[in-house]
Order: sequence, then structure tokens, then C-alpha cells
Amino acid sequence: MSDIYPKSLGRLIEDLKHLPGVGEKTAQRYAFSLLKEDHLFIESLAQDLRDVKREIISCPKCGFISEKGRCMICDDLLRDHTTIMVVSYDQDVIAMEKTDTYHGLYHVLKGVISSSKGIYPEDLNITSLLDRLDGVKEVIIAISPTIDGETTALYLEKILAKYDVLVTRIAHGLPMGASLDYADELTLIQALNNRRSIKE
Amino acid sequence: MSDIYPKSLGRLIEDLKHLPGVGEKTAQRYAFSLLKEDHLFIESLAQDLRDVKREIISCPKCGFISEKGRCMICDDLLRDHTTIMVVSYDQDVIAMEKTDTYHGLYHVLKGVISSSKGIYPEDLNITSLLDRLDGVKEVIIAISPTIDGETTALYLEKILAKYDVLVTRIAHGLPMGASLDYADELTLIQALNNRRSIKE
Repeated sequence: MSDIYPKSLGRLIEDLKHLPGVGEKTAQRYAFSLLKEDHLFIESLAQDLRDVKREIISCPKCGFISEKGRCMICDDLLRDHTTIMVVSYDQDVIAMEKTDTYHGLYHVLKGVISSSKGIYPEDLNITSLLDRLDGVKEVIIAISPTIDGETTALYLEKILAKYDVLVTRIAHGLPMGASLDYADELTLIQALNNRRSIKE
Repeated sequence: MSDIYPKSLGRLIEDLKHLPGVGEKTAQRYAFSLLKEDHLFIESLAQDLRDVKREIISCPKCGFISEKGRCMICDDLLRDHTTIMVVSYDQDVIAMEKTDTYHGLYHVLKGVISSSKGIYPEDLNITSLLDRLDGVKEVIIAISPTIDGETTALYLEKILAKYDVLVTRIAHGLPMGASLDYADELTLIQALNNRRSIKE
């Protein structure tokens, strides 16, 4: 059937299936929508793709995306350089920055430990974390509480215990706006165990 | 906040928001996933995008995508050139071809009439349909039964009535595998009205 597509369209559809969660049907929908865009847009999209791949590197210090050398967060002298938040992905940094609440540095692992996917500690950006603990007072572990995320967090806790640094984890509990009766059991247990006194 | 993205990444995210149904969050997810692809893939994606835009045209006869001149369906002498199926979009042709059941020609309107979106009959590929009715015995209207689709189908029925050609519409009713009690009312009404005798 695929011989009904002109060859270039078939190739584009195959390319688009590389995007996360995109199958044949969505790739086809995207390809036809791109076909309707004007030449100027397609040219700039092609150029932007190349630019991103050529210009963006990982910060040698924290692993976060950067245009040249250290990222703008590591380079920012106004931030608290004694606190490091460890996250799994670049996107987590962006989500946290949007809160405008955290002013320390980050460390991006670029993944989580996953025995099912064959991802082990040595595949992650962990050694460079241990190399930068000098002068650091607190390491905040902010990894999504999935099964693989928990494994990763426990692994980090274990190796960080050997260093003279305070290790904390972000709180897990009921998300704001959620109703108690719709929350899953594990979240409820976490919310109960992590309860705090409201006495002033 | 967007100043946390390197500029090229910010541009790519804006580009990706042009895809149908893709907002900030999904565009960001796609951009980060593209960042992880190797140079070779990004180069070929950029090239495929340009090729698609440069090489693919609309068939001057039926409007379906084509690489040069008439599309491979209009050019296929083994198909029944006395039957034309009218569809709204290129993708509809592909869906129908996958059934391997229909062997006539197509006519792609490139949209539906929609007063809310300001799309009128003259914006669609309709004149060229009327220009190719010589020698055609049947026009099958195969437009999705949405509100705008119904408007378009009724409009076509009206203008085609002036021509000496059999006009039919594909059947609407209960989809295969659907349960009656989950079907919406309009579908049930259509299924009832279009009932057929099972007498041989």
C-alpha cells in the first residue's frame, strides 16, 4: 500500500515516526499538514533542525542543554552554587525553572536506571555529579517517582551517603487540586507518611 | 521563561507547534527527542522536508498528491475511469485504497465547506470536478458525515443533479464491531433508515 505515497512523502512519514508516541496514522497526519505549509516555513524548519543539532551541546558541568561551554544556569553567579538539584531530563529543569522558586544549580542525569531497558548507572551522567560536590552543601533529588525513578533515587542516596553533603528529596504527596478519593494508594500512603505538623 | 531555551531550540519548538494538535508541551517533547537523534537522521529529515515541498504537487485532474503531472491513480489505465469518488482530503484516498476494494478514480476537494471557518464552495476543488464529468457514469460522494461534511455533500448533490450522471453516497450506519447501545443517536437513526432487505 505504501507505494501510493510519492517516495519523498513516504520517507518523511517514516522520519516522523521517530517522534515519541507518533505512529503511522499521526505521522501521516503531520506529513500532510507539513505539505500544506509554505516554502518559507519548510525552509526555516529544515534550517532550525540543523541549527539545533549543530549548536546545542550538553553543559560540561551539569549536563543541561547549552549553546556553548557551560549553560546559562551554571554561569549565573547570582544563583546559589552550594545547592544542586538532580533531575533525570533537560525538560525537568525547564519545568522547575518555570516555578521561579528554585535558585540553586542543577545536575541532569539524562535518564533513569532501568534494568528492563538495559540502562545502568554507568550510562547516566553520575560521575560528573560526584566530581562537583566540593563546596556543595545540599543535593536535592528531584526524580519522578516511577519504579525506575525510585531505583535511581535510591542508588543516588546510597552513593551520596559517602560524601559530606546534605541529601534531600522533593516531597511526594497529593498534587494540588486533586481529590483524595481519586488518588492512587501509593500516593495516599506517601501523603500520609510525609504529613507535617501545622503547629507554628 | 522561554529565555532558558537556547534560541535555536526555542525556534524549533515554535515550528513544531504548527503540527495539528501540537501545543507547547508536545512541541517541547518532540524538540528534545529530535535533539537526541544523530546528525545523519536530522540531515535526512531536513532533506526529506525540502524534497516533499519541492517534489509533491496536486494532480491537475483529481487534486490528489502527485510527483509530476497526473497522479498514479489517474494515470492507471486498469482502473475504472467511468467512476469518480469525491473525498475531502488526500488522506481519505489513502484510507480507501487500503481497503483494496475500490478501483475507480478519485476527486479530492481539499477541504469541506465551513461557514464558521470561512471556507466556501469556490475555495474547494469543485470546478475541476464538473469539468471532468464527460464519459463518467457514477459519482460517489464519500465525505465524512460531520456537520460541515454534510453541508458539502448536499451542495455537491445539488450541483451534480444538473449533470447526466448517477450520484451516490457511501452508506452511513453502525460501524463494524460497534455495540448498538454505545452508538450515538444520529448514527442509529441513519442505520435504521438505511436498513436493507436480507431477502436474496
